[in-house]
Amino acid sequence: MKILVLNSGSSSIKFQLFLMDKNESIASGLIEQIGQENGHAVLKANGEKYEKFVQIKDHHVGLDIMNELFRESGVLHDLKELDGIGHRIVHGGESFKSSALVTPDVIKKIEDAVVLAPLHNPGHLAGIKTAMSQSGDVPHVVVFDTVFHQTMPEYAYRYAIPYDLAKKQHVRRYGAHGTSHHYVSMQGAKFLGIPYENFNAITLHLGNGASVCAVKNGKCVETSMGLTPLEGLIMGTRSGDIDPAVITYLMRQGELKADEIDTFLNKKSGLLGICGTNDMRDVEERIEKGDERAKLAFDMFAHRLKKYIGAYYAVIGKVDAIIFTGGIGENDQDMRQKVCDELAHFGIKIDANLNKDRSNKGDRCLDASGATIKTLVIPTNEELMIATETLKLIKK
Amino acid sequence: MKILVLNSGSSSIKFQLFLMDKNESIASGLIEQIGQENGHAVLKANGEKYEKFVQIKDHHVGLDIMNELFRESGVLHDLKELDGIGHRIVHGGESFKSSALVTPDVIKKIEDAVVLAPLHNPGHLAGIKTAMSQSGDVPHVVVFDTVFHQTMPEYAYRYAIPYDLAKKQHVRRYGAHGTSHHYVSMQGAKFLGIPYENFNAITLHLGNGASVCAVKNGKCVETSMGLTPLEGLIMGTRSGDIDPAVITYLMRQGELKADEIDTFLNKKSGLLGICGTNDMRDVEERIEKGDERAKLAFDMFAHRLKKYIGAYYAVIGKVDAIIFTGGIGENDQDMRQKVCDELAHFGIKIDANLNKDRSNKGDRCLDASGATIKTLVIPTNEELMIATETLKLIKK
Repeated sequence: MKILVLNSGSSSIKFQLFLMDKNESIASGLIEQIGQENGHAVLKANGEKYEKFVQIKDHHVGLDIMNELFRESGVLHDLKELDGIGHRIVHGGESFKSSALVTPDVIKKIEDAVVLAPLHNPGHLAGIKTAMSQSGDVPHVVVFDTVFHQTMPEYAYRYAIPYDLAKKQHVRRYGAHGTSHHYVSMQGAKFLGIPYENFNAITLHLGNGASVCAVKNGKCVETSMGLTPLEGLIMGTRSGDIDPAVITYLMRQGELKADEIDTFLNKKSGLLGICGTNDMRDVEERIEKGDERAKLAFDMFAHRLKKYIGAYYAVIGKVDAIIFTGGIGENDQDMRQKVCDELAHFGIKIDANLNKDRSNKGDRCLDASGATIKTLVIPTNEELMIATETLKLIKK
Repeated sequence: MKILVLNSGSSSIKFQLFLMDKNESIASGLIEQIGQENGHAVLKANGEKYEKFVQIKDHHVGLDIMNELFRESGVLHDLKELDGIGHRIVHGGESFKSSALVTPDVIKKIEDAVVLAPLHNPGHLAGIKTAMSQSGDVPHVVVFDTVFHQTMPEYAYRYAIPYDLAKKQHVRRYGAHGTSHHYVSMQGAKFLGIPYENFNAITLHLGNGASVCAVKNGKCVETSMGLTPLEGLIMGTRSGDIDPAVITYLMRQGELKADEIDTFLNKKSGLLGICGTNDMRDVEERIEKGDERAKLAFDMFAHRLKKYIGAYYAVIGKVDAIIFTGGIGENDQDMRQKVCDELAHFGIKIDANLNKDRSNKGDRCLDASGATIKTLVIPTNEELMIATETLKLIKK
């Protein structure tokens, strides 16, 4: 069974081809600068790299080029050979409680959610429509970043603003990174041999975007991202949580205009705003050189993260495991060590050597003896999760 | 020793007179509708009520009337007899790390902080200047709501926005209710016989405004209110924490204008926004009658509060006690029971009968046997705390 996973943006398409019999990725690539003068397409398969520099006027041409690269590499001769195509969708609004086979009604609902994800859903829709036109009878499935969080109780997903307005405008906590939180929590349960429906975990997806999720009995009950991916942890360029009055204060002080707020909080804040770089590796290099602002950024990130772990421990009661994933979660031993050391009173206790060991890149447990809450590192794999969901739906 | 405590607003002055030898309040009252047509002044002393309905054109006239009422009641003949006057100040900005004897320089610094508390500091300044002009050589002391929180480490009080701008505009977490958090944490330590400098507590000041404070070794290390009292818990009419992108989203949807944001989040949100009343007693009455929206408001309030308790447990490590105070904290047995029951895994365990007992209005412990974190109710007394601080400074 061959499943293709597409992540279509407004000017790019990321893709990955899976052989589902072995849950194995056999090719992956990227089409970028769609609609611009200098397009670029790259495919990696069989240990080789296939590449084209050519103008790519729209998503349709982009998928044609992807097809050509597939043929050149020999992994696939035509999209029509596929058993299914899975599409990553950032925002499913309130309509989607699970992944879905693509139908006209499903497309309509994704269009309805454009207002909630104006930067993402239009690109996804372009990708879906183009791929459908080029793949004959192959079934398409949409997998949403928001779906895993749809099990939150209302008292967790509502904001304390006028209720009728919130309902009318669909303002609520949706969360994001749901496919990743779902994947690593399922993998974590499997790793520990705990039935997923009994598994309680706090999953930490820490990358340039970062979020935390509270999983109780295999279901999301809280998450740190909100109406948008701005809320919650400190991120590469996003502020995360902030007194909303900071915005009106800075406007009154003449430092910010209404139409600059989004960019200010989403693109100029976070680690970048504090210390001038959005990359945690750079932050840590600068700390080595004695940069105090970098140290502050690192400490602020850790402090915010600890508060969320504590908050979600309060929410879910017994915690089986905390699970690190994402670029920082999987690779940043310093952040892991600091956060875990400072949560020793929760029963979190990791072995410094296991934590430092870079030879093991797989699912792993970092516990030292005496730990009562397990600390896992589970490399995320959203594409495999999308392929798995796709397979599940087309088999139905 | 007689100390008068003044809490001057833009159109009101609350006051309380203390005999400090016994830490006893011997009179209290309110001057209101200053500058309006129908002024009102009331004093309670000796179990009697002394009252005037008369136009009060400014703070000066207001204090004259207070003086008359004092004379009528016999508790004080002239402000000049006082040993000191303590003023409550909402915002001390970054300048004040402790209470202060009033000097021209102190007044200048309070004026500098007007930008951070435009609704409060001007009224305080009017009160100070007027009281000084009428009290001869009596020393004046200012006690700030922000001072207790000034011990927060930088990684806790900074927001993840551009650092230089934040510094220039003094944007940071200041917190509020500091005098209350300080008072109840000191009282809590005394109640438990723990030296204050070794005392760790999470203090919950829950009223129409509500905030949480993490106290480690007798010092504030985190608090839920931020640049302004908008951040943090769900309050009577304030949203507390919210994805700041909700604001820009509602503006794009045509539901909110830039100059309406402050009012929307501060006056129309919170419990009021969710269920139509800002008073938790009404919320609970409505729940009795089966009102689902009221139930949602109650559950959201409790959920947010639990998350903060967990977050601060993460921050401070070993917790000696959680301390309930404020109108809701002191009187709302249902909220206390719910929050404590759902935090049993932290070692919090209260006795339902002790919790329900309304005959004991003093400092009290609600623990059931087996509790490892103490649960206290400590009625707050910000006025006594201000009087105590005032006495301390004038004795120096």
